Amino acid sequence: MLGNFSYCNPTKLYFGEHALDALNTELAKYGSNVVLIYGGGSIKRNGIYDEVVRILAECGKDVAEIAGVMPNPTVDKLYEGVAIARAHHAALLLAVGGGSVCDYAKAVSVSVHCDEDPWEKYYLRFEEPECETLPVGCVLTMVGTGSEMNAGAVITNPHTHQKIGHVFADEKIMPRFSILNPRYTLTLPRYQMVAGIYDIFNHICEQYFSGTDDNVSDYLSEGLMRSVLHASRIANADMQNYEARSNLMWAATWALNTLVSRGKSTDWMVHMLGQSVGAYTDATHGMTLSAVSLPYYRFLLPYGRDKFKRFAVNVWDVDPAGKTDEQIALEGLEAMERWMRELGLVMRLSELGATEEMINGIADGTIVLPGGYKVLTRDEIISILKESM
Amino acid sequence: MLGNFSYCNPTKLYFGEHALDALNTELAKYGSNVVLIYGGGSIKRNGIYDEVVRILAECGKDVAEIAGVMPNPTVDKLYEGVAIARAHHAALLLAVGGGSVCDYAKAVSVSVHCDEDPWEKYYLRFEEPECETLPVGCVLTMVGTGSEMNAGAVITNPHTHQKIGHVFADEKIMPRFSILNPRYTLTLPRYQMVAGIYDIFNHICEQYFSGTDDNVSDYLSEGLMRSVLHASRIANADMQNYEARSNLMWAATWALNTLVSRGKSTDWMVHMLGQSVGAYTDATHGMTLSAVSLPYYRFLLPYGRDKFKRFAVNVWDVDPAGKTDEQIALEGLEAMERWMRELGLVMRLSELGATEEMINGIADGTIVLPGGYKVLTRDEIISILKESM
Repeated sequence: MLGNFSYCNPTKLYFGEHALDALNTELAKYGSNVVLIYGGGSIKRNGIYDEVVRILAECGKDVAEIAGVMPNPTVDKLYEGVAIARAHHAALLLAVGGGSVCDYAKAVSVSVHCDEDPWEKYYLRFEEPECETLPVGCVLTMVGTGSEMNAGAVITNPHTHQKIGHVFADEKIMPRFSILNPRYTLTLPRYQMVAGIYDIFNHICEQYFSGTDDNVSDYLSEGLMRSVLHASRIANADMQNYEARSNLMWAATWALNTLVSRGKSTDWMVHMLGQSVGAYTDATHGMTLSAVSLPYYRFLLPYGRDKFKRFAVNVWDVDPAGKTDEQIALEGLEAMERWMRELGLVMRLSELGATEEMINGIADGTIVLPGGYKVLTRDEIISILKESM
Repeated sequence: MLGNFSYCNPTKLYFGEHALDALNTELAKYGSNVVLIYGGGSIKRNGIYDEVVRILAECGKDVAEIAGVMPNPTVDKLYEGVAIARAHHAALLLAVGGGSVCDYAKAVSVSVHCDEDPWEKYYLRFEEPECETLPVGCVLTMVGTGSEMNAGAVITNPHTHQKIGHVFADEKIMPRFSILNPRYTLTLPRYQMVAGIYDIFNHICEQYFSGTDDNVSDYLSEGLMRSVLHASRIANADMQNYEARSNLMWAATWALNTLVSRGKSTDWMVHMLGQSVGAYTDATHGMTLSAVSLPYYRFLLPYGRDKFKRFAVNVWDVDPAGKTDEQIALEGLEAMERWMRELGLVMRLSELGATEEMINGIADGTIVLPGGYKVLTRDEIISILKESM
């Protein structure tokens, strides 16, 4: 049953090959001091940096930069960025990059005017900002995280091996605008593309495998999953297929902008496990998810058999005729495994640099959430992690 | 292929049995002069009026009223409301009712500070407001139109037999907030409930039957349609089923808030035909749509066979084995017809008071839009209308 909830998502999205044309209009809405935030420099090689800098200059902006935001942005990098944004009296944070850069910009946004330590306040105590926050704009160059239209920000503390996401409650923390040009994603390496595709798919799974309900969110999730499967097969065969890449980009946004979780509980344990792996290995996010997914879902199946059966039939077109619920549900996961192998996803944590010695630490770092079919015990986490090695 | 487009939908939605609790918070954001807008008085009988008036008083608001907004709001009623809102120096228009009341509030919003005649400017010349517009809030009591989260407003001119909708371009025209309590819809008569259900379903069809694409919007549409079918069958058997009614309410919002039309063309000819019928007969909107739908879709099928085939398989579970595309597509429409008859929808224009003598006038009043598989000629419109009698 759809419970009580609210929904508000005011991010303005500009989509398509000419989406950057809107940047002028959006920049005009903010003060002159802009902090430009980006990652390892791929945007300098593919020309996006030059284009954005040209538009910023045209708009008469005074620009400071935070460069070198890493794939798993660290708390030290956060402190550094906060200092830069403060010194520059930033009126707008412009993130140009993938989900990490966008997440990072949101973390800076809530920290610039915060008197407390942001790691402790937002990531250990999960508090909401009482201070003023800075507007964030986003030019997206990678697909998967959905960060372009949500209020989530994952930060990693490598000193304590903690990778923690905070989804802020106030829609003001969502990017004010996001520019989504699928062409920007065509230069990504295959490894990043397929990791992003699995990230999208798993975002939907995390919100789907929970509750006994049969509500609009479940049906929307199934539509989105089918869309991702269809586009992923085309993109996997032809990475330069603009249509498939554009559909993946748009699906990614809707997979994690809160829509498909409305009115139901959510699970998120694949992300909790994967993030803890990421804190130990610095591995690519989507691959940490793919490596733990099937051991987790096979463990979870008996607790949510009806939904796994529905998943098999409605998402993977498993023919239910003459089969038990268990068989149907398992066939769905087998079809999912075939698709994952077809994409070339990492199916073992050991391939990501995780070792048996890390398992206790990864288990300790796994935040256990209560929304799914089964609240995991530490022993179960360890067993799933071992199964994933 | 997903083309260039933008998307922004900032309406804050409060959903569930306790949704009205949020009205206080929202009212605090606006000035003291509120115009309360409602329809024929059903909200006085079911207690919603008293509840809203109590909250307005608690918040210290100075309230004027526009009562008696009719199911197809007229241009004369619009002029009357504009005068009331002007005289009251309204800071907020609060619509309490169904889609007609909400549409009407938006039409008042763009007209209060407009020096020109709003009918001519917005409905005959389809211009956008240059003037200041008033914020609109909505407490929804009927399901179907999606008006609670879009910038559309349909107004009828009974003198000229024109019923015209304008979807305004600026997201500021969308309600700032909408309160969606499914319990408010439980007192609706069956006729209104099923008309609303068909309105929802047809909104999705209008955005689905167009383009040769295979994009995210198509998959989301199929998920929404399956959700509406599922919930409609439960609600039809048990009108007091809160879960089914809540799923219908939520699906209605997403069926027409622009999401499922992103990146593709749209058709809308069932609405254009139905609205012209409405201008002649003042019939319930959803029933005008149901009466013209099957004759129109059977006419359209040869021009969009692939999509009708997909519709049959993905929405109606038609088994395609051993059948021609044509047979599969037709079986989909047959399944749709069975569902429509099961709901008790009106399948003939003659049952709505339309007569053979009106056909030429209805055809003249039908706005022909170019987005679908076939741009209708006047002869084709007349033939579809005759088929619908």
